[in-house]
Amino acid sequence: MLLLSNEDVEDLLTMADCIDALQRAYQDAADGTAVNGFRSDIITQTTHENASYSLKMMGAVMTSFEIGALRLNSDILTFPIKNGKRRKVKVPAAPDERWVGLVLLFSTRTGEPLAIFPDGVVQRLRVGATSGLGVRYLARENARAVAIIGTGWQAGAQAMAVAAVRPIKEMLCFSPNPESRQRFSMELERRLGIPVVPAESAEQAVRSADIVLCATNSLNAVLRDELIGPGMHIGSIRKGEIDPATLLRADRVIIHHPDNMTDGHVVFARGVKYFEEIKEVSINTALRTLTEAPALSDVVSGKAAGRSAPSEITCFLNYHGLGFQFAATGAILYKKAMQAGRGHQLPTEWFTESVHP
Amino acid sequence: MLLLSNEDVEDLLTMADCIDALQRAYQDAADGTAVNGFRSDIITQTTHENASYSLKMMGAVMTSFEIGALRLNSDILTFPIKNGKRRKVKVPAAPDERWVGLVLLFSTRTGEPLAIFPDGVVQRLRVGATSGLGVRYLARENARAVAIIGTGWQAGAQAMAVAAVRPIKEMLCFSPNPESRQRFSMELERRLGIPVVPAESAEQAVRSADIVLCATNSLNAVLRDELIGPGMHIGSIRKGEIDPATLLRADRVIIHHPDNMTDGHVVFARGVKYFEEIKEVSINTALRTLTEAPALSDVVSGKAAGRSAPSEITCFLNYHGLGFQFAATGAILYKKAMQAGRGHQLPTEWFTESVHP
Repeated sequence: MLLLSNEDVEDLLTMADCIDALQRAYQDAADGTAVNGFRSDIITQTTHENASYSLKMMGAVMTSFEIGALRLNSDILTFPIKNGKRRKVKVPAAPDERWVGLVLLFSTRTGEPLAIFPDGVVQRLRVGATSGLGVRYLARENARAVAIIGTGWQAGAQAMAVAAVRPIKEMLCFSPNPESRQRFSMELERRLGIPVVPAESAEQAVRSADIVLCATNSLNAVLRDELIGPGMHIGSIRKGEIDPATLLRADRVIIHHPDNMTDGHVVFARGVKYFEEIKEVSINTALRTLTEAPALSDVVSGKAAGRSAPSEITCFLNYHGLGFQFAATGAILYKKAMQAGRGHQLPTEWFTESVHP
Repeated sequence: MLLLSNEDVEDLLTMADCIDALQRAYQDAADGTAVNGFRSDIITQTTHENASYSLKMMGAVMTSFEIGALRLNSDILTFPIKNGKRRKVKVPAAPDERWVGLVLLFSTRTGEPLAIFPDGVVQRLRVGATSGLGVRYLARENARAVAIIGTGWQAGAQAMAVAAVRPIKEMLCFSPNPESRQRFSMELERRLGIPVVPAESAEQAVRSADIVLCATNSLNAVLRDELIGPGMHIGSIRKGEIDPATLLRADRVIIHHPDNMTDGHVVFARGVKYFEEIKEVSINTALRTLTEAPALSDVVSGKAAGRSAPSEITCFLNYHGLGFQFAATGAILYKKAMQAGRGHQLPTEWFTESVHP
């Protein structure tokens, strides 16, 4: 069984790989050969001070890639107050101040475990790649100007993804912190080789944008509806980022997956604190009506229309993960790692058994 | 992180350990501090000849033991016809003809992965231990005679469990194959130090039994209702083993968990074969009405009554697993392994990350 590190994933897996792999996954999903399991989030108390414990898992199988995947997270969550609001922060409480997220890959031909690797790098790539697919099917073909709202870890992946599917000429980025947007612009400009300009306001960033991608930690709308004009494509990775008014008047809203619009997969233990305070705005009416909207796999497979006119306002709500994002990107990663001889082989018999399970 | 083998589990974990650990788990479940996640079974096609692929996962957290657990299975399923009926058989298709089932344990205090081990031995122990709890709360205190219906791998654990909670004087065992019941009797007599007699028929086995435990592969009733008399406790680990008439007239029927009475956690890919033919009888009316019956955790915690009179007929339906069976037994196993210095330590940093997940 192959043990890979985040460095291996970073070196081996490109955004273009991920977008192509996910395109196949969403096609297969529509076809019924890529199957997503039920997600499970368990949230409990912990003896770690002022924190909660979270054990999350999601799995999927892609038969076209002959891969089953399982992604799990074992998180210590704290709830500091920042700018007067309570936030959820995963703290690296494992030895040497590390986090715990893993992906396991299995062969659908033999059942054997093929690989295990941390989820950090691939997790960001797959969120970005999924937004990239949204852009591919929903943004105008001639879109050249991009606004990125948010300048964190996920925002960078959004920028890489949009640059992979459209010949972008310029990006503007905005976050409330001037230093963050300065640093983000410089890093991204170097990485993408196109001008990336820090904007003074969300309004300035969005004003001339063809594509607006939001990747913030905000639980409130980061774009007032009046900023959104005809022909724009808007992407969001977190519930609440988009003004409900925009969702209601957009010509075309595509969701990631209907199951992802609610929190039906979460189970709370007794006595867990703070979750009410940080609750995502999943219950707002605009979102609730959208569980019936077409999903990304419908658009990728042609069952539902993508953008149908240059003047349309389109939205893609890339909320929460799906197991087969890890199956798809994991399959490509495994293939490339084996070809490149990367990673460490652990004895497969450590992870298999002679006893009937 | 500690790597353990099935041999380690066999040497370290006793049936009594498991019953005590599970008693705590079901108490904690009633109290809301042991929490079970959603199960997920994915069943797809595979290129393995005449087979299906199955990826299953279940997880749970027990805060009293500070343990999160995840159990997963990656199975190649075949569907041979035996005695005119199609059966589901897991084949060991991984390298060196091995199966793939794993348990991962995590600390709720730090999030770190604590241990990984194959599920085969513990899987049988926890099924047995759960039936043992059923006997503890539902069989007569003075029960001394036991009938075991079935002589396979799971039947042995049922026998070990009942012997751990009542001072059993004699067991009779039955399966249609005379050689199997002969072998099973000898093995069990040696292991338990009490007489274990092979019976010629289910009727003979059950006639003078106080406790009847079924652990067969049968999808049809293995005990006709007229064999069941006053005061008996009947346990079953598979839907269909108990005659619906018995379920309807029993004084007290306790189920494992309401969610386990249906197959709502299973997702099928397109084109999967044979599952209709082997479908369990989960849809029979007697069972359907039982989703409202008290669950084991209700009885263990005192929310629902156990046996209330010597003459009662009681049934415990130990169907399907629950994640916290693995959290409970895993926690004890981990503690004993650390104390005994068993297993192999793998670098924890292989399974943690410096990148935010």
